[in-house]
Amino acid sequence: MQRFFRRFIFGLSMLTMASPAFFFCEIGQPMKDLSVNAKRIEQSITNLAEFGKTPQGGVHRVAYSDEDISARKYIVALMETAGLDVRIDAAGNIVGRREGRENSLPPILSGSHIDTVPHGGKYDGAVGVLSAIECVQVLFENGIQTRHPLEVIVFTDEEGGLVGSRAMNGTLTSEALFEKSHSGKTVREGIRALGGDPDNLNSVKRLKGDIKAFLEIHIEQGRILETKGIDIGVVEGIVGIVWWDVTITGYANHAGTTPMNMRQDALLTAAQLILTVNRVVTSVEGSQVGTVGRINAEPGAPNVIPGKVVMSLELRDLSADKIQSLYKTIEEEAALISKKTGTQITFDPIDAMAIPAPTDPAIRRQIAESAEELGLTSHFMPSGAGHDAQDMAKIVPTGMIFIPSVGGVSHSPKEFSHMSDVVNGANVLLKTILKIDQQR
Amino acid sequence: MQRFFRRFIFGLSMLTMASPAFFFCEIGQPMKDLSVNAKRIEQSITNLAEFGKTPQGGVHRVAYSDEDISARKYIVALMETAGLDVRIDAAGNIVGRREGRENSLPPILSGSHIDTVPHGGKYDGAVGVLSAIECVQVLFENGIQTRHPLEVIVFTDEEGGLVGSRAMNGTLTSEALFEKSHSGKTVREGIRALGGDPDNLNSVKRLKGDIKAFLEIHIEQGRILETKGIDIGVVEGIVGIVWWDVTITGYANHAGTTPMNMRQDALLTAAQLILTVNRVVTSVEGSQVGTVGRINAEPGAPNVIPGKVVMSLELRDLSADKIQSLYKTIEEEAALISKKTGTQITFDPIDAMAIPAPTDPAIRRQIAESAEELGLTSHFMPSGAGHDAQDMAKIVPTGMIFIPSVGGVSHSPKEFSHMSDVVNGANVLLKTILKIDQQR
Repeated sequence: MQRFFRRFIFGLSMLTMASPAFFFCEIGQPMKDLSVNAKRIEQSITNLAEFGKTPQGGVHRVAYSDEDISARKYIVALMETAGLDVRIDAAGNIVGRREGRENSLPPILSGSHIDTVPHGGKYDGAVGVLSAIECVQVLFENGIQTRHPLEVIVFTDEEGGLVGSRAMNGTLTSEALFEKSHSGKTVREGIRALGGDPDNLNSVKRLKGDIKAFLEIHIEQGRILETKGIDIGVVEGIVGIVWWDVTITGYANHAGTTPMNMRQDALLTAAQLILTVNRVVTSVEGSQVGTVGRINAEPGAPNVIPGKVVMSLELRDLSADKIQSLYKTIEEEAALISKKTGTQITFDPIDAMAIPAPTDPAIRRQIAESAEELGLTSHFMPSGAGHDAQDMAKIVPTGMIFIPSVGGVSHSPKEFSHMSDVVNGANVLLKTILKIDQQR
Repeated sequence: MQRFFRRFIFGLSMLTMASPAFFFCEIGQPMKDLSVNAKRIEQSITNLAEFGKTPQGGVHRVAYSDEDISARKYIVALMETAGLDVRIDAAGNIVGRREGRENSLPPILSGSHIDTVPHGGKYDGAVGVLSAIECVQVLFENGIQTRHPLEVIVFTDEEGGLVGSRAMNGTLTSEALFEKSHSGKTVREGIRALGGDPDNLNSVKRLKGDIKAFLEIHIEQGRILETKGIDIGVVEGIVGIVWWDVTITGYANHAGTTPMNMRQDALLTAAQLILTVNRVVTSVEGSQVGTVGRINAEPGAPNVIPGKVVMSLELRDLSADKIQSLYKTIEEEAALISKKTGTQITFDPIDAMAIPAPTDPAIRRQIAESAEELGLTSHFMPSGAGHDAQDMAKIVPTGMIFIPSVGGVSHSPKEFSHMSDVVNGANVLLKTILKIDQQR
């Protein structure tokens, strides 16, 4: 891996040497035809995917692993080539900064993550980091200096629980530091392995006003854009997620000797409730989703009537009120089912997984305008998946750009986005950065 | 345990000495007031429950275990006290025989088993064995010799797969001998430990005509008799049981990014199918039952739409045709659900668990008449659970007597039947034996 790595650095140095003279000029408007280098993005995506490459064509690069650490070195080199001053903050986030013309102004941030789920793909996170670096590289090559400082960020351990972005908004708990990550290290040990300082996380925290805007580009991880044939998703916000454990208590009994009308079959009640969840969630307009993904019936033998079922219930929406209203309806219907079936149903909230995180309306418009100016179609939509942007939205006006995922597949070696879509997204990001920069 | 065992044997000897003179008289009709000794049955149930007694008040006496072997010695002693000649057949069945007045006639058999499920109760099996011994004891004490020889049988390893009765009807496979039992021994090793000879199982086989009748008394293991307030269940037959593995294939996807109308949720389909099974089974008259007892949804995370569900389907009825007709309807409705949901549903028969085993109509009537003559109420019903009687019914006119189970509980330390019900059952058994004996 080390040898491979050195080869890249060499390649990058050659690129740098070949780029135009580095002078910064002040400009009122961005150059009309300014656009990212498609070939270079493609190459950097291919290169990054070598770190943790799997035989299945995917990437296994869990946070804090050797693969993650090697890949981060590659990213640091890319950032430096793009003229960024790089530092590792106490949470292990990589922050590359390029000063602006007005350094009293807060920076415009853009980035994502490069850690993957176990046996994941090449695009989730990577597209956001590499597009952000490419934007700075293009500005650098074209001698364009923005008013605001620019910062490109690689957040630590997104897949393991948004570690870097939670450190930045001040919600990373000390319990989270002691959780074991997929690398085998605790989060605390992992942060140290990245060059961070888990005892000094307060230094990472940013307050409202510290940052002008945060922008993240990401693969959709769903099929909405592909199905509708749209180029760019303008993310309205990252949905709130609430989980419950639903316990249904009936009476376990002999499946042969208990007549049908004497049963208190917990699985039969569960079946009614699963259909009810689906009906309630789809009975109102909107993009809310409701899922029963986990179910366990006890004792679990073909010849015993299930006496107890525990299943999960997950509701997601951009509006916390809507989640609560759907839940209330489900709970009411569950009470009726309970009465009718002689089984008990209880809902235990597991964890407020995430509260809804709306993006900034002005930035949404700027993203949509940028897309339009580039001749691209766009669509306003929620993000059903969690992202670092949801933590950043709590402290910074945030925008998020989606590009189509083929088949909606993610967290899989089969995860794929067309390079034309990646390039479109990066160009929208570039235009949006410049729009925000020029906005007075 | 050994010391305890000797104490019993001593107690039994005392009882024997106190019993009336042992002479056999020929009688045309049974003595009208002939009845079992309630105190003695109660005592023998209490005594037998000491072998494998658990702190929860139940019995853990799995076949071939030390507890089983000790308990069998106690049973052999009881049998001998009742005037039975005891032998262990090649399958390890305990067979106690008392000659009749016409020894060319085939014997009347009665019995059950004394092995329990792990952490079972005091009544399942034990009631059948101890009632049969008590009937012979009463005849012995009253000097009554039946026309037919009488045999009391303790079948080997009922709970582990009807081992003793399958050996008797010739359906015990050689594969079954190599299965590991709850005792840790294979069935083969277990039979040897009981004094049987697994290489000589052919000697155990009985043919049609070899036996006059087989009678088994058993706890109901259901709540029908208790709920209806009836004393005696006249078993119409042991139901057939068919099992399927039902596999539902949808598409596993991100629960946040996949809109409700783009899902192929295997668990949602499973829920529809579970309700369909219940509706189809309850839509026709009769005592058939249908159960989904086991379910597994993959990948099984709250935030992933289940892509695959495997669940069990069990149907039971006295009529094999009815089972097939119910299954056909379920399969047809499944095809419609499959089409509507875009998921696939396949049914794989696991094993023809049991074919229906009807009892003998003449014996059913004799049991009902016996109950009536004793002033007891009775009810014709299927046995939803499996019993040694189902194997015997294939070669012998068979009758089965149920007594109420409190709360329908069985296979549990909480298994309980009132002693008055046990005694009623034993008296019905005694009367029925005598009726069959006198029938020309």
